[in-house]
Amino acid sequence: MAFLKVVPLEEALEILNSFEMKPQTEEVPLEEALGRVLAEDVVSPIDVPPFDRATVDGYAVRAEDTFMASESDPVRLRVVGEVHAGDFPDFALDAGTCAYISTGAPLPQGADAVIQFEDVEREGDEVVIYKPAYPAMGVMKRGVDVPKGKLVLKKGTRLGFKETALLSAVGMAEVKVYKKPRVAVISTGSEVILPGEELKPGRIYDINGRAVSDAIRELGGEACFLGVARDDEKRIAELIIRGIAECDVVLLSGGASGGIRDLTSSIIERLGRVYIHGIAIQPGKPTVIGQIDGKPVIGLPGYPTSCLTNFTLLVAPLLRKLLGRQSEVRKVRKRLAHKVFSVKGRRQFLPVRIEGEKAVPILKGSGAVTSFVDADGFIEVPENVEILEAEEEVEVTFFG
Amino acid sequence: MAFLKVVPLEEALEILNSFEMKPQTEEVPLEEALGRVLAEDVVSPIDVPPFDRATVDGYAVRAEDTFMASESDPVRLRVVGEVHAGDFPDFALDAGTCAYISTGAPLPQGADAVIQFEDVEREGDEVVIYKPAYPAMGVMKRGVDVPKGKLVLKKGTRLGFKETALLSAVGMAEVKVYKKPRVAVISTGSEVILPGEELKPGRIYDINGRAVSDAIRELGGEACFLGVARDDEKRIAELIIRGIAECDVVLLSGGASGGIRDLTSSIIERLGRVYIHGIAIQPGKPTVIGQIDGKPVIGLPGYPTSCLTNFTLLVAPLLRKLLGRQSEVRKVRKRLAHKVFSVKGRRQFLPVRIEGEKAVPILKGSGAVTSFVDADGFIEVPENVEILEAEEEVEVTFFG
Repeated sequence: MAFLKVVPLEEALEILNSFEMKPQTEEVPLEEALGRVLAEDVVSPIDVPPFDRATVDGYAVRAEDTFMASESDPVRLRVVGEVHAGDFPDFALDAGTCAYISTGAPLPQGADAVIQFEDVEREGDEVVIYKPAYPAMGVMKRGVDVPKGKLVLKKGTRLGFKETALLSAVGMAEVKVYKKPRVAVISTGSEVILPGEELKPGRIYDINGRAVSDAIRELGGEACFLGVARDDEKRIAELIIRGIAECDVVLLSGGASGGIRDLTSSIIERLGRVYIHGIAIQPGKPTVIGQIDGKPVIGLPGYPTSCLTNFTLLVAPLLRKLLGRQSEVRKVRKRLAHKVFSVKGRRQFLPVRIEGEKAVPILKGSGAVTSFVDADGFIEVPENVEILEAEEEVEVTFFG
Repeated sequence: MAFLKVVPLEEALEILNSFEMKPQTEEVPLEEALGRVLAEDVVSPIDVPPFDRATVDGYAVRAEDTFMASESDPVRLRVVGEVHAGDFPDFALDAGTCAYISTGAPLPQGADAVIQFEDVEREGDEVVIYKPAYPAMGVMKRGVDVPKGKLVLKKGTRLGFKETALLSAVGMAEVKVYKKPRVAVISTGSEVILPGEELKPGRIYDINGRAVSDAIRELGGEACFLGVARDDEKRIAELIIRGIAECDVVLLSGGASGGIRDLTSSIIERLGRVYIHGIAIQPGKPTVIGQIDGKPVIGLPGYPTSCLTNFTLLVAPLLRKLLGRQSEVRKVRKRLAHKVFSVKGRRQFLPVRIEGEKAVPILKGSGAVTSFVDADGFIEVPENVEILEAEEEVEVTFFG
């Protein structure tokens, strides 16, 4: 570690983007596809419905047989069969005949309309028809809902219940989706303990480990929280090695002290390579980006809001790429609720809460837990800007 | 089943609401709490931070010792100890002394400010201070972030990553949440088969089973899809009995034919009691509401859009009640994209897609799969209304 390399945010993103990481795919049963992202276009392999289908209970007829029917001069058709839902008729309708049919059943060959019970009279083996049926009346034609060969869902679609239902309707028992990226999460800092442990003097409960793990899950990834490595060099190295072996990405969140960052950097340097020792933004300067065995290892800052801001800026885009979700919009334009001051020469990211059309800045400082808990996301204040006026339009990036 | 009882929607909702179903709660480890709903108010059991904490690396001082410091007449303080993050100082600062301190470490007793390294000079066991420190400078005071006893999260809050992070910060290893209601889902209809099965003539693939199961999951419930019972009375009864034994609610979706509804009704009648044989709305008249062993059994219509509309109107509120999520808003006001006609004397629910500020009616008919797949929700057209004009304001209820 000859010198600390602090780079602009764009350079950090370029480096992460240059890492060879391709989305992986897998086949999952449709029952487990909810919430996953399609890794291929889906074309319907069948017509839906797969046959001309009765939409009412009644009699299947040849419409042309009924064209002359009237109240005063009804048409009589002979009932030659019955078709129930689930059956397939093994007979055809000749001129002058009809068939009893229930909703959902396939029309017999020759039939092109269904007249509902209420509109006819049954007399023995005949039905009496008082008004003409028109072709396709009471019928859902084969393929009218989804024709065979139609593109029904595009690659990159997140599967909600409507999409899984559609896949079921076209008979897909399995579906190709993007694999969930596995992300190892390691908390560091000698003062950090986990909930459930005794709060000895000088200790604080972990927050970043939980926040980052659950943010990964909300994005659709798989988080493997490996625990708190404190400031123990051997333990940090062990957990990084375990993370590299088991996961696609390794994240560390620093404790408050700068020493941890240096420790993390030197361990990554020893096991692989460090590309960046810091990013020229506030908060979040102390961010380390490296690579071990071709897998990204990212050390996030210790302060919770800094940690989440940098997770959002650096890690979330990487995970979205692996999840096939790049195109998602995670930004919204709002008006600033009140004036804020920034430090000239610093590119700053400021947490804000959204209230209606306003973005309300949260000015508790990045050390406060509640500053990111109260915030929905953040706005950027460029280096050359010292003051943002109330009512100014700002772009809010949601956390996560 | 002496007569078919068709009632207004409100009466159906009242009956469902009168069923004794109380939300159940359970304790879950915080690692598994993401997405769950809090079943109790959470009050912080600790101060966060739990001690006066350095926010910079530097020297902890008694601010009053530095009040006279100036460039020309600096103050000298003797360094009497060191405190690192994770330590707890076993010494106090007397007048004229200071201590080396790292970010995140607790201040020794007596100290009330931290001056960062950059602003002092170290000379042997002394530091030279050129300007006054003010009390609380470089310090996050105990409890300033979250004071002990503060209500941090309210009962009924859905836990996202920010909320689980906050719970971690206050040291909660377990959290009391609402139990996921278990819902049995049974598809009926002799024409219905499951994806993966061979599409024999006259058969169609199940859609409602998948749609309803995954809609339950998206709501936060647990869906147990029990399979397709076809129109087999014995099989339907078996699956209902299994659903009642294993789950809190049993849902059936009908096949297209009216016969299934009657079959379902008579089975429920035999095993328990049927309260409603139909609801005076379109689509969705063929909806059965009963109760077996104190658990609701609801037969939904067979047509997919009718099924989803009635799921949204009847089942989703029940599940939200069990999930502690009643207060959620699932409606939005939009303007109708074009004129639609309705049938006078019918209370109709019409699927619509949302495009910007417009609600675009989807007029494919409720038999079509794609009509609910293309829709985001539905609007209500009251009985006495025949025409809704373009640009009229409508309230859209989201599916699910």
